[in-house]
Amino acid sequence: MTEAIQTDIGKYRITQEPFYLQTGNETGMFEAACAERLPVMLKGPTGCGKTRFVEYMAYRLGRPLITVACHEDLFASDLIGRYLLRNDETVWEDGPLTRAVRMGAICYLDEVVEARRDTTVVIHPLTDNRRTLSIDKKGEVIPAHRDFLLVISYNPGYQSVLKDLKQSTRQRFVAMTFDYPEADRETDIVAHEGDVDRETAGKLVALAGKIRNIREHGLTEGASTRLLIYAARLIRQNIPVHEACRSAICLPLTDDARLQETLGDLIDDIF
Amino acid sequence: MTEAIQTDIGKYRITQEPFYLQTGNETGMFEAACAERLPVMLKGPTGCGKTRFVEYMAYRLGRPLITVACHEDLFASDLIGRYLLRNDETVWEDGPLTRAVRMGAICYLDEVVEARRDTTVVIHPLTDNRRTLSIDKKGEVIPAHRDFLLVISYNPGYQSVLKDLKQSTRQRFVAMTFDYPEADRETDIVAHEGDVDRETAGKLVALAGKIRNIREHGLTEGASTRLLIYAARLIRQNIPVHEACRSAICLPLTDDARLQETLGDLIDDIF
Amino acid sequence: MTEAIQTDIGKYRITQEPFYLQTGNETGMFEAACAERLPVMLKGPTGCGKTRFVEYMAYRLGRPLITVACHEDLFASDLIGRYLLRNDETVWEDGPLTRAVRMGAICYLDEVVEARRDTTVVIHPLTDNRRTLSIDKKGEVIPAHRDFLLVISYNPGYQSVLKDLKQSTRQRFVAMTFDYPEADRETDIVAHEGDVDRETAGKLVALAGKIRNIREHGLTEGASTRLLIYAARLIRQNIPVHEACRSAICLPLTDDARLQETLGDLIDDIF
Amino acid sequence: MTEAIQTDIGKYRITQEPFYLQTGNETGMFEAACAERLPVMLKGPTGCGKTRFVEYMAYRLGRPLITVACHEDLFASDLIGRYLLRNDETVWEDGPLTRAVRMGAICYLDEVVEARRDTTVVIHPLTDNRRTLSIDKKGEVIPAHRDFLLVISYNPGYQSVLKDLKQSTRQRFVAMTFDYPEADRETDIVAHEGDVDRETAGKLVALAGKIRNIREHGLTEGASTRLLIYAARLIRQNIPVHEACRSAICLPLTDDARLQETLGDLIDDIF
Amino acid sequence: MTEAIQTDIGKYRITQEPFYLQTGNETGMFEAACAERLPVMLKGPTGCGKTRFVEYMAYRLGRPLITVACHEDLFASDLIGRYLLRNDETVWEDGPLTRAVRMGAICYLDEVVEARRDTTVVIHPLTDNRRTLSIDKKGEVIPAHRDFLLVISYNPGYQSVLKDLKQSTRQRFVAMTFDYPEADRETDIVAHEGDVDRETAGKLVALAGKIRNIREHGLTEGASTRLLIYAARLIRQNIPVHEACRSAICLPLTDDARLQETLGDLIDDIF
Amino acid sequence: MTEAIQTDIGKYRITQEPFYLQTGNETGMFEAACAERLPVMLKGPTGCGKTRFVEYMAYRLGRPLITVACHEDLFASDLIGRYLLRNDETVWEDGPLTRAVRMGAICYLDEVVEARRDTTVVIHPLTDNRRTLSIDKKGEVIPAHRDFLLVISYNPGYQSVLKDLKQSTRQRFVAMTFDYPEADRETDIVAHEGDVDRETAGKLVALAGKIRNIREHGLTEGASTRLLIYAARLIRQNIPVHEACRSAICLPLTDDARLQETLGDLIDDIF
Repeated sequence: MTEAIQTDIGKYRITQEPFYLQTGNETGMFEAACAERLPVMLKGPTGCGKTRFVEYMAYRLGRPLITVACHEDLFASDLIGRYLLRNDETVWEDGPLTRAVRMGAICYLDEVVEARRDTTVVIHPLTDNRRTLSIDKKGEVIPAHRDFLLVISYNPGYQSVLKDLKQSTRQRFVAMTFDYPEADRETDIVAHEGDVDRETAGKLVALAGKIRNIREHGLTEGASTRLLIYAARLIRQNIPVHEACRSAICLPLTDDARLQETLGDLIDDIF
Repeated sequence: MTEAIQTDIGKYRITQEPFYLQTGNETGMFEAACAERLPVMLKGPTGCGKTRFVEYMAYRLGRPLITVACHEDLFASDLIGRYLLRNDETVWEDGPLTRAVRMGAICYLDEVVEARRDTTVVIHPLTDNRRTLSIDKKGEVIPAHRDFLLVISYNPGYQSVLKDLKQSTRQRFVAMTFDYPEADRETDIVAHEGDVDRETAGKLVALAGKIRNIREHGLTEGASTRLLIYAARLIRQNIPVHEACRSAICLPLTDDARLQETLGDLIDDIF
Repeated sequence: MTEAIQTDIGKYRITQEPFYLQTGNETGMFEAACAERLPVMLKGPTGCGKTRFVEYMAYRLGRPLITVACHEDLFASDLIGRYLLRNDETVWEDGPLTRAVRMGAICYLDEVVEARRDTTVVIHPLTDNRRTLSIDKKGEVIPAHRDFLLVISYNPGYQSVLKDLKQSTRQRFVAMTFDYPEADRETDIVAHEGDVDRETAGKLVALAGKIRNIREHGLTEGASTRLLIYAARLIRQNIPVHEACRSAICLPLTDDARLQETLGDLIDDIF
Repeated sequence: MTEAIQTDIGKYRITQEPFYLQTGNETGMFEAACAERLPVMLKGPTGCGKTRFVEYMAYRLGRPLITVACHEDLFASDLIGRYLLRNDETVWEDGPLTRAVRMGAICYLDEVVEARRDTTVVIHPLTDNRRTLSIDKKGEVIPAHRDFLLVISYNPGYQSVLKDLKQSTRQRFVAMTFDYPEADRETDIVAHEGDVDRETAGKLVALAGKIRNIREHGLTEGASTRLLIYAARLIRQNIPVHEACRSAICLPLTDDARLQETLGDLIDDIF
Repeated sequence: MTEAIQTDIGKYRITQEPFYLQTGNETGMFEAACAERLPVMLKGPTGCGKTRFVEYMAYRLGRPLITVACHEDLFASDLIGRYLLRNDETVWEDGPLTRAVRMGAICYLDEVVEARRDTTVVIHPLTDNRRTLSIDKKGEVIPAHRDFLLVISYNPGYQSVLKDLKQSTRQRFVAMTFDYPEADRETDIVAHEGDVDRETAGKLVALAGKIRNIREHGLTEGASTRLLIYAARLIRQNIPVHEACRSAICLPLTDDARLQETLGDLIDDIF
Repeated sequence: MTEAIQTDIGKYRITQEPFYLQTGNETGMFEAACAERLPVMLKGPTGCGKTRFVEYMAYRLGRPLITVACHEDLFASDLIGRYLLRNDETVWEDGPLTRAVRMGAICYLDEVVEARRDTTVVIHPLTDNRRTLSIDKKGEVIPAHRDFLLVISYNPGYQSVLKDLKQSTRQRFVAMTFDYPEADRETDIVAHEGDVDRETAGKLVALAGKIRNIREHGLTEGASTRLLIYAARLIRQNIPVHEACRSAICLPLTDDARLQETLGDLIDDIF
C-alpha cells in the first residue's frame, strides 16, 4: 500500500464515537457479514438511522468509511475515477469507490437505486467471489483489499417500478431492516441530541408516534427522529412549543392544508 | 480564512437595510434556526416576499448572502464549482454554494425543486449533523463554516408529481410559511415602494384582495404585491388608473379573455 | 463605460425611423414603463407588429436595441456569454443580454417561452428591485446600466401547457396587448410598404378581414399584415391578383385543401 | 466582396441547363418573388421536381445555388458556421447559409421542418425587412447580399403535429405548390431521362397514374417520376418489363404483400 | 486518384469467391442497376443471404466493398468522417462512405433504418442525378466515382412506425426481395457450409420448413439458414442430433417454454 | 502477436480451477461450439452459475477470459476502444473486446441486452463467417484470432419488449440453458462454498426449493444458490439460523411484508 493511500485512510477514519443506541442484534449481524466479506444492504425509511449506524460500525470496527450519496446523474465514472487534464498532463484520479477498494474501507452507497444503471455493473464483480473492480478506461482489474466492505442503503417505501434494484443485484447482499427506534430509546436520543429534558423529549416522541399512525391518511412517510430533534432545539431557543413543532415537524412533512390542521390538533392534544 | 475569501465576503454583504415589514414571529423563528444551525425552508406563493425576507435577515444578522435561482438545467457542479482551463492551466473555481460554505454566508437556493436531482445529494451532508460539502472532483470534504446557513424556497402551489421535494430532503429543514401581507401592511408597502398616496395604494390592495378571492375561477395564482407596486408606479407616471391596472395587474396574470373582462369589472368597481 | 462598449452601442443604434403607425396609447405606456425601469411584455399574434414597435420605440427613445429570437435550444449561456479558446488563450465573450445590461440597451427577447428554462432564471434578478445579472461562470454580479430595459414578446394563441410562462416570471412584467391594426391604418401600411395604390391595398385588407373572421374554422391564425404586403408586391410585379393572393396569403396559411378552396372563394368575392 | 468568395461562387454556379419542363407560371412567380426579395416556400410530394425546379431557376437567373438537406440533427450552427481548431489556431468557418448570405446565392433548405427548431430562429431575421443574419458566436450581424434568396421546401403530406412549421415561420414566405406533371409532359420526361421510346414511357406514366389513384388504399404516397425513370432504365438494360416495374416502382413503394399483388395486377393490365 | 486510395482499394477487394447459389435473376437485376448507377435496396428476413449476396456481387463485379452495419447511435459523421486531433495537428479522416465514394466501391449500409435520421440526408444527394457527397464540415462537395454504388438492406418484418424509411428515401432505390432459398438449394448450402452429408442437411432443411410454417403461432421470424449450418456443424462434432438442433435452432429462436416444446416435437418427427 | 499482447494474456488467464459441478452435457456442447468457432449464448436466471461456468470452461480450455458486464450506458466504444490524449499525444487504447479479438480470448458479455444497441452492430461481423471486428475510428478491420470465442449471457425472465435481443442477433448464437442445480448437487455446492455440514446445507437447499415453488405468488425470481451460501456463512459465524436465513435469503428477495411472513413460515417449517 502506497504512502498516499495511508495518508488518505486518515481522512476517512471516524475518530469520535457516533452516538448510536442498538435496537436488536444489528451490530452482530453486521460484524458477521463483515467477517465473511458479504456485502450488506440496509433497508428502511428516511431518517431512521441507517447512515448513523454505518458510521457507528465503521468507528467500532476501526475501518475508514467512504460515503457516496447516489442520485440520478451519478455515473459509474463518478465512483471509479477519471482522467483529468492537469497542466497539460493527463492524470488519473481515483473515484471514491476505487479509493475504498484500495484502502480496505467501508464504502457506503446511500440510496443506491437513484444512481444510473452503469453503477450496478461496477459493483457486481465486487459483490461475488471475484471481489474485483474493473477500471475499463485503464484496462486494470483491482482486487479488493481484504478489509473492503460494500454497504448500500435502500428505502423500500420509495421505489417505483422504474427505480428498482434488479434481482441480479439484490441477490448479492445480506439485508438488514431498520425502523424508527422504540419510544423509550427515541426519547433518549431526542433528549440527548436536542438537549431538552426527558419530559419534553417524551412528548415529542409521543407526537411522532401519533403522526406515524396516521401515515395512511395521506402522509407518504412518518416524522423522522431528526425532526423531533429539530423541534427540541427550537424549544431550547425559547420558541413556543406549538410553533416549534409546527415549523420543525408538521410543515416539512406535507403541503396539504387539511393534513396540517390534523397535525396541529395532535400537537394540542399532547402539549 | 484566506484574504481572497475576506474580499469576497464584502461583495455579498448587504449594506442597505431592505424594506421589510414583519407579519408575525418570522424573524424570531429564523434567528432560532440560525442559532441552532438548522437549515430553513420558506414556503409560499410567488411574489409574497420570501426573497426580500432572506435579504432582510441577512442584513439584520450581518451575514453575507449568496442567492442561486434554481432551474431545470442547474447541475450540482453549477453549485459546487468546476475545473476551468485558463491559459493552459487547469484552475479550480468554487461555485456559489462552496463559496458560501467557506465564508459562512447564508446560501439561498430559490425554487430549489426546479434544480436537477444531483443537487439534492449535494445539500444532504450540509443539512445533517455532518455539515460538510463533498467536492468529489477534488476528493475534498469541506466542513461548513460555523456561520453557514442553508435556506431554500419552495412554492407548494406549483409542485407537480414529477417536481416534488423527496421526504428524505424535506425532513432536513425547519419550515416557515409565507403569504401575502395583511391589507394594512400591504398598503404601507405599496405606498412606500410605489411612491403613491395611501388612498391609491389602499385601492390597489383592495383590488388585489378581490382578485385573490377569485383565484379558484381560473387564475392559478393571485396578484403579487410586486404587481401592485408596478401599477402604482405607472399611475405616478400619469398613466390613467384603469389602463395602469390593466397593464400592470390584469394582463400579466392571465391570457384568458373572459377572465380579463371580469378583472376589468373589478377595476371599475373600485376606482 | 469602456471604449469597446461605446463602439458597440453604435452597432445597435437604430438610425432610420422605422415606419410605425400608432394604434392607441402604446407609446405612452412604453415610455412610462421605461421611465420607471419596469420590464415590458408584449402579447399578440404573429406578424401584428410587436417587433416593429420595439424598433420604433428604440429609435424614438434613442436607445440601442439588441434582439434575441428565442428557441428550444437557447441556453442561458447563449444570452450571458461564455469562455472561448482563442489561440491558446481563454477569452470571455459577453452574450447579447450581458452586452445590453452593460451598455444600457433595450434587450428584446422575442418569443421568450420558446427558450430553455434556465433563461428565466437569468432574467429574474434583472426584473425585480435587484436589477442585476449574475454571471456564475465568472463569479460576477453586474448591476444593470440605468437605461437597461428588458422587453419580451409572447404569443398567447400558441402556448401549450408545456410551454407557458410561469406565474413567478409573468408577474415581473408590465404587459401590453397587440392586435392587427384597424382596416384604415392597415390599408395605409400595405399601400406604403407594398407600394400599391390605396384601392388595391384596401381590397387586400378586406380579404384579410374575412380570413381573420373564419379563424375558428380551422385556421390557427389569421393572415398577418406582412402577407398582405407580400401580395401587394407580387401584384406590383404584374402577377395576376388571384395568383398573387393565393401564393402570398392563402398557401402560406394552411395545407388543408378544403380551406384553400374557401380562401379562393374569398379572393373571388373581393377582386 | 473578397476574392475567396468570388472563387466560392464558381463552385456553386450551375453551368449546364437542368432539364425542366414548365407546368404553369411557376417561373414567373419565382422571378417576381426574386425581384421583390421575398422568401419562397415550395410545397409538394416526394420526387415531383421541387429540387430540380430550384436548380433550373438558379441556372436561369444565373445565381449560385447552395442546397442544404435538413434533418433531425441539423443545428443552427450547421447552417451558420463554427469555430474550428486548426493547428492550434482557432479559425471561423462559415456554414452554407452564411456563405449564401455573403455571396448572394439562392439558399435552398430542403425539407426544412426536419431541422431542429433553432434553425427557424436563424432564418427569421433573413425573411423580414431586416434581411440580416446574426452570428451570435462572433457578435456579428451580416446584412444579406442584395441577390440573396431563401427557398425552403416542404411536403405537406408528411407533417405530423410535432413537425410542423409554426405560423410565425410560414407567414414569412410566398408559397408555390408542386404536383406530379401532367401525363404528356411526364411522358416526355421519362422518355428523355430514361432513354426509352415514347410508347414505353407512356405506359410507365399510365401505370403511375393508376398507382397514384389507389393512394387512399394504403399507399402513403404515389410513385414519383424518378421511379418511372428507374424502370425505363432497367428496361433499357434488357430487364423484362414486369420485373423492371416491380423492382423500380412497386417494391420501393410499400412492404405490404397484398398491395404488391394489386400493384402487380396493374402492371399486367398495362403491359 | 491518390496512391493512398489505391492502397485502400486492396483492403476492400474480395479475393475469394464467396459461396452463393443464385435463386432467380437477382444477379442480372443487380448488374443492370449497377450499369445504370441506380442505388439498390435489398429487402428480406434475417439470415436469408442479403449480406452474402452483396459480397458475391462485389467479387463478381471486381469492385471493392465497404460494409457499414447501422445502429441507433450511428451519426452521419460516422459515415462521412471527422476531424481528429493527432499530435497537436488537426487531421481529417474520411469515414467509410466517403472512402467508398472516392474509390468507386460498393457501399453497403446494412439495416439502414436503424441509423439516425441525419444519415438519410447524407445519402439523398448520392442517390439522385447529383451523385454527390457533401462534407459540410470541410465545405467540400465530392462527386461520386463513376463506379460507386450504394446498396442498403432492410428487413420489412421488423419495422415499426418510428423506424421506417421515409417515402422520400425509399423512392430513390431499385428494390429486390430476398427470402429463404428453396429446399433443394438450401440443402446444398447446409451440406456445403456445415460439412455434413446431404441426407442430414435435407432433414435440417425439412425441420426449418416446418418451423417457418408455424411462424404465426408466436415466432416473430423463422429459422435462418445460418442456424441450420450451426446445427450441422455441432452434429459433425458428435453432438447428438436432437441436442444439436435444440441448441442451434430452437433455443436461439424463442424464450417461450411452450413453443420450445412444439419445436422439440418437430425435431422428434423428423429425426 | 506483439509482446504487449503476450503479457496481456497472462492477466486474463485463470490459473486456479474454479469450483464447478457439471449438470448435463454443457461442457461437451461448449467444446463443440468452441471447436466450430460458433458464438455461444447462455440463457438462465440470476445466480444459477452462468458466469462460473464460463470461468470454468476458460480454465479447462486454457484460454484467457475477458468479461464485460453490460449496462444501459455501455457504448460500442467502451468495447472497442478509443483515442485518448496522453501528454499531448493521441494514443489509441484497445477496449476489452478488441483485446480479446487480438489475443484469441473468450470474450464474455454478461447481460448483453442491457447494452446500447450500437454494441450489437459491433458483434455481428464477429459472429458470422466474416469473424472480423471493424474499428471505424481507425479505419481498421481486424480478423479475429482463430481462438477467439464470443459468449453472451441473457436472462429470459427479465426481458421487456424494449430490451430484447433482435432476431438478427439471436440467430447468430448456439444457445444453452441454465437453471438451478438439482437438490443433491446444490447441497454439495452450499456445503463446499458455505463451509457448513451437509445437513445444514441440505436444509437450506430444501428452503430454496420451497421458495422457488412459490415464485408465481409474487416473487419475480427464486433464491439463487449464492444466497444459500450467504446464509450458510452467517450460520458459521454463529448467527441464529432463522435470523441468518431471513437476512441472507428472504429480505434480499422482496420488499413485500406479506411475502416476508410467508417466507418466515417456510424457515420455521424446515429448521
